[in-house]
Formats: sequence, structure tokens, C-alpha cells
Amino acid sequence: MPTSGHLYDQAEFVAAVNQRIGTFLAEKKDQVAAIDPQAAPLVDSLIALSRGGKKLRPVLAWIGWRAAWVHAPVETEDVQPLLNLAAALELFQAAALVHDDVIDRSATRRSQPSVHIQFEQRHRASGWAGDTAHFGTTGAILSGDLALSWASELFDLAAEAMPANALRAGRVFRQMHTEVITGQFLDVVAEVSGPTATEEEAVRRARTVLTYKSAKYSTEYPIELGCALAGGTTELSAALAEAALPLGIAFQLRDDVLGVFGDPGVTGKPVGDDLREGKRTELIAYGLHRAPEAAGAELESMLGNPDLTEQDATQIQEILTSAGALSHVEAEIERLTARSTEARAKLVNLGLTPGILRDFDAVAELLVSRTS
Amino acid sequence: MPTSGHLYDQAEFVAAVNQRIGTFLAEKKDQVAAIDPQAAPLVDSLIALSRGGKKLRPVLAWIGWRAAWVHAPVETEDVQPLLNLAAALELFQAAALVHDDVIDRSATRRSQPSVHIQFEQRHRASGWAGDTAHFGTTGAILSGDLALSWASELFDLAAEAMPANALRAGRVFRQMHTEVITGQFLDVVAEVSGPTATEEEAVRRARTVLTYKSAKYSTEYPIELGCALAGGTTELSAALAEAALPLGIAFQLRDDVLGVFGDPGVTGKPVGDDLREGKRTELIAYGLHRAPEAAGAELESMLGNPDLTEQDATQIQEILTSAGALSHVEAEIERLTARSTEARAKLVNLGLTPGILRDFDAVAELLVSRTS
Repeated sequence: MPTSGHLYDQAEFVAAVNQRIGTFLAEKKDQVAAIDPQAAPLVDSLIALSRGGKKLRPVLAWIGWRAAWVHAPVETEDVQPLLNLAAALELFQAAALVHDDVIDRSATRRSQPSVHIQFEQRHRASGWAGDTAHFGTTGAILSGDLALSWASELFDLAAEAMPANALRAGRVFRQMHTEVITGQFLDVVAEVSGPTATEEEAVRRARTVLTYKSAKYSTEYPIELGCALAGGTTELSAALAEAALPLGIAFQLRDDVLGVFGDPGVTGKPVGDDLREGKRTELIAYGLHRAPEAAGAELESMLGNPDLTEQDATQIQEILTSAGALSHVEAEIERLTARSTEARAKLVNLGLTPGILRDFDAVAELLVSRTS
Repeated sequence: MPTSGHLYDQAEFVAAVNQRIGTFLAEKKDQVAAIDPQAAPLVDSLIALSRGGKKLRPVLAWIGWRAAWVHAPVETEDVQPLLNLAAALELFQAAALVHDDVIDRSATRRSQPSVHIQFEQRHRASGWAGDTAHFGTTGAILSGDLALSWASELFDLAAEAMPANALRAGRVFRQMHTEVITGQFLDVVAEVSGPTATEEEAVRRARTVLTYKSAKYSTEYPIELGCALAGGTTELSAALAEAALPLGIAFQLRDDVLGVFGDPGVTGKPVGDDLREGKRTELIAYGLHRAPEAAGAELESMLGNPDLTEQDATQIQEILTSAGALSHVEAEIERLTARSTEARAKLVNLGLTPGILRDFDAVAELLVSRTS
């Protein structure tokens, strides 16, 4: 693993992050198995999970880190703190995903059985006593707890190596925790508490969930943490966040669209899965409040219906399209993309090198042009 | 709140800890409610939970902290780092309890509905859609996640104020997390995986769960963290841990005894609750392997039986008593108490003041003489 240099090559950086996570989790597996080998599956599930994913957050942290070096005197060429930060972001996400899959009762994650399903399988295969589903929930709660705790451990390792910047980065890291967990809860409350009186309120709720549960910790905080930990100015941090966050929101809005209109062959999710879950997205909010009354009621009645057919899903697509909900969300995605492009101009003025800007543009492209 | 001085009075110290937790959680409630007031119950449940409890871990941290001052030059009279450490220990415990109550399906905690039951009640009272029990689990998972994350936030605040000792204390704090979560999982695995071939293996498993899930984080780590954070020598840390840990193990063995033999009027738990849960304690391990074959089979068949009657519980008490399991555990508690007394002598040699020793003895008394 390279321990010095800025890792100018993204593939090389991602490989180094994967290696850091692998080494860390292997050490943790040893520590846990030394207590009792029967506890090793708690770590195995995290090892499997952390092998997948796009490593989007590490890449954004890497961009923020390199941006900071443009201005700051290079105190150290050691990239170990950056790798620890990147691994912390990945384990924080792993914790969120593992607990979220229990909460949403999602059976698959990254084309594998989700962690609670893995523990159910282990319970069944071992012929153990008691409730299989509850054992699955238990294993996933505790695997997620370890991931959450280890994210902090890795962050502390990063912060210890950069004492001058630890406090500022720590504030952002902690705020990220509170916001994501709060966003997860609000998402569930929106699902169970049903429709709102006004479109405005429905959109506000959906945007709050989207921003705090997903967008900020996927874009703004990683790039800001990379910059803050490397000692970048607060002006630079803010400019990076301003360019990154609209992309995170656009990414999630696209996710909402794909959840209803996506091609199952490309998304890997069955048609209408978001509808069966009863997710109250902005797309749905516009549909409910802009469709003719009968169509709106039809849409409302289908939300959260586990028996929703493919035909029902097609009907919902038609309602959302003719009510203008789809085009409204598409326009919002465009507006957000334009806002990011505007903020990017500030980054040019702040002296970011063409190499960093190119890497930022590649992430932006990945975020807004997704089809899966 | 006193912000300076050593807080020589235990009641004053506990009051200051309660105040620190109250202030911290009030700030957090504001932060969470600013995102959306609907998320406030996530914090309310932690506020209610943290009002109860004996504050055992804070008191041990306070003893460790004061022990360190005996040798070290007094750099600061500020007790704020100690209060933050104490609050971190309490929130870490809150996280463990909230998730454990989901895992054990315990409906009450500290004479109140446990957190997942509180969220079930809220779901029902609001007339919300979907599965009430699952909403309860969701709320408890996320409340526990916040508590876990905020424990780290509070610890970071403590550590930032004591930079010279932060690294060493941080290692202990992190190890505590990994061990407790691992212990929680092993506890469940022991319950579902059934009897072991040998008494030795059954006792080893029970002792591992007891040590890692409960004893260490209740005694050894709090006193060690207080000492380490204040800059006490590693010799002193080790001596404090050696005196504290046997008490933590004895406390849990007493807990196992009370779980079967305790007076419900005193313990607040129905007779035989541990048996219904199927907890494989050392007491049970001795009973299973030392009772005559028929009685052993009887005992095994009753473990984890939710329909266990009071009469069954009385029969199990008789089996455990006549097999010598009860007296064996009582003897072990005595042996552990003696080991702590021996280790305490070392603390005298290390120059601990009579005041600190008196406070330590009071905690020791509380730990080994409990009846509830």
C-alpha cells in the first residue's frame, strides 16, 4: 500500500482504500475471534459488504484533501490519515446500510443477501433454536453497531495524525452522524404517518429526508472532511460543499425517478419496489397533489401496497407523467446540476488545479447521469 | 454546575454528571428538532432512560481520576473532561441497553417501558400505518445509534481537553466498544446454540459473555478510563483494574443467582425470567452438568420455555440447590471478593488517600452485597 504521495490516480487511490479497509477489518476479526471464534461472523458480514460499492465518499474526500494542498504548505506527504478517513466514511456507510436494511426489510444489498438475511441463513444452517428472523435482526443490529463504532475509531486515527485540524474535522464528522440517523427516522415516520395536507409540506418532508439521510453524507461531508482534515481554508471547504451538495440531491432525485421508472434489467430492483415500500418521495408528492382527484386517490391507495403488480406500477408511471410530476423532478435535477456548475466556477477562482477539477467533474458526471 | 475542583463529595459529583448529561441531550434535542420536530422522540427516550440508573460507571471513573491526581502534578482543576467522560460512559451504556432490550425482547427497563415499547406506544397512539412492533424496533435501533455516536462525541470532548492522555484513553474506550458488542452477540449465540458437551466449555462460554458483555465495561474500563484520562501511571491503572474487575464479575454472578432465586418484590422482575429467556449462565451450567441425569434433563427442557410457571421455577431452584450449583457460584463470588480485597492492598501501597479508598469500598460494597 502506498503510504506517501498524493495518489494522483483515482484507481490507485481506491485500491489503497480497499486495502486499508481490508487490513483494518482483518485486525478487528482477529480481535473479535480472540474473544470467541463464534463472534467472527459479525466481522465477516462487514468484510463482504465493504468489498462492494462505488467508493464515492472516499473519492470525494480525496478530492477535498488534494484541494486543500493547493493552498496549504505541504506538511506531510503521508496519505495514511486520508486513507483512514476514507475507511471511516465507508464503515459509517456500512453501519447505515446494515441498520437500514433491517428497518426497510430489504433482503438484498449490492446483489448479495443483506446482513440480517445472512444471519438468518446462518441460524437456519446451524439448526439453532429460537426465532430465525429475530436472530437475523440481532446479528445485523450488532454488526451495524460495530461498524458505527469502528468508523469512529478510524476517524480518531486520522484525526490524531492531523492534530491541528482534528477539532474542525471532528465537528463535521459528528454532525454527519446525528443528521444521518435523524434522517433515517424521519424517512420511516413519513412512510407510516401518511399523506400531508399540502404539496409544500409533502415536498419539504421529502427534501428533508433526502438531504439528511442521503445527500449530505454522500457528497458535502466527505469532500468537506477531506479538505478540513488536510487543513484547507473554511472558504475552500464551503466552496467544495456548495459544488458537491446539489449533485448529491440530484443523485437522490434521480434515484426516486429510477425507483418508479427504472428498467429492472439495469437497476437490479423489481419495478415499483419504492412504491411497495411506500416511500414518500418528491416525485410522489407532486403526483399526489397535481394529478386529477381520482388519479391522486388511486396513487395514494397503491403506496405501501406489498401486492402491487407490474401493471399497477405502469399505471402509476402514467399518472406521474401526465400530472407533470416527472417533468417537474427532471427540471429540478437540471436546476441542481446548473447550481453545481455555477459553484464549480468558484473552485476555479480558488486555484484548484485542472487535475482536481477533472476528477471532480468525473464524480459529478457519475452522480447526475446514472441509469442504475 | 461546578466546573472546577475535584468534587470530593460523591452525591455532588453524581448531580454534576446528571446535569452534564441533561445539558448535552437538551442541546442534541434542539439539533435534531431543528431538522424536523418529528424526530425529537429519538432524544426524549434517551433523556428518560439516562435519568435512571445507579451511575456506577461515572463513580468508578471519578475514583480512577482522583487516584491519578495523587501522583500526577495537578495541571488543571477543571473537572469538565471527567464529566464528559462520565456522560460518555452513561450514553454508551444507554446504547447497549436500548439495543439489548430489542434483542432480548425486554418490555421494561428501569421500571419504565423499554425504548422500543415507547416507540410502539407512539405508533399506536398516532394511529400510524404499518407494523407497530417493527416501528418500535426501528425507533430503538436509531435511538441506540444516536446514543452510541454521542458517547463518542462526548469522549472526544473529554479527550480534546487532555491531549497528553487522549491516545491511551482512546485505545481503552474503543476496545470497550468492540468487546461489549461482541459479548452481546455471544450471549445470543449461547442461547440459541443450546447445551455444550462439557461443563468446562459451558462455564467458559458463560464467563466470556459475563466478562465482555457486562463486567469489564461496568468496572474495569470506567476506573481505568478515569485514571488514564487524568494521566495516572499505567501501574496505577492496572492496579485499579485488578481491584475493580473481580467485583464486576461477582456482581454479574450475583445477578445470575437473583435471576433464579431473587425475590420478585425486591428485584422487580418476575420469578424465573432468566430461565424463560434461556440465559445460559454459570449457575445453569453447573446445574446441568452436576445434577442427576433426570433433573439435568428437566432443567434443560425448561430453559427458554416462555410458558414456565412459578412452580417450575421453584423446582429449578431445588435442582440447582441440591446439585450444589448455587453453593458453587456463591463460593466463586466469595473468591472474587477476596481477590479484589487483595488487589486493594496494592492500591494502599500506591498511596491512594483514605478518602479515595473509602469511596472505592463503598462501590465494592454496593457491587457484592446487592439483593436486587
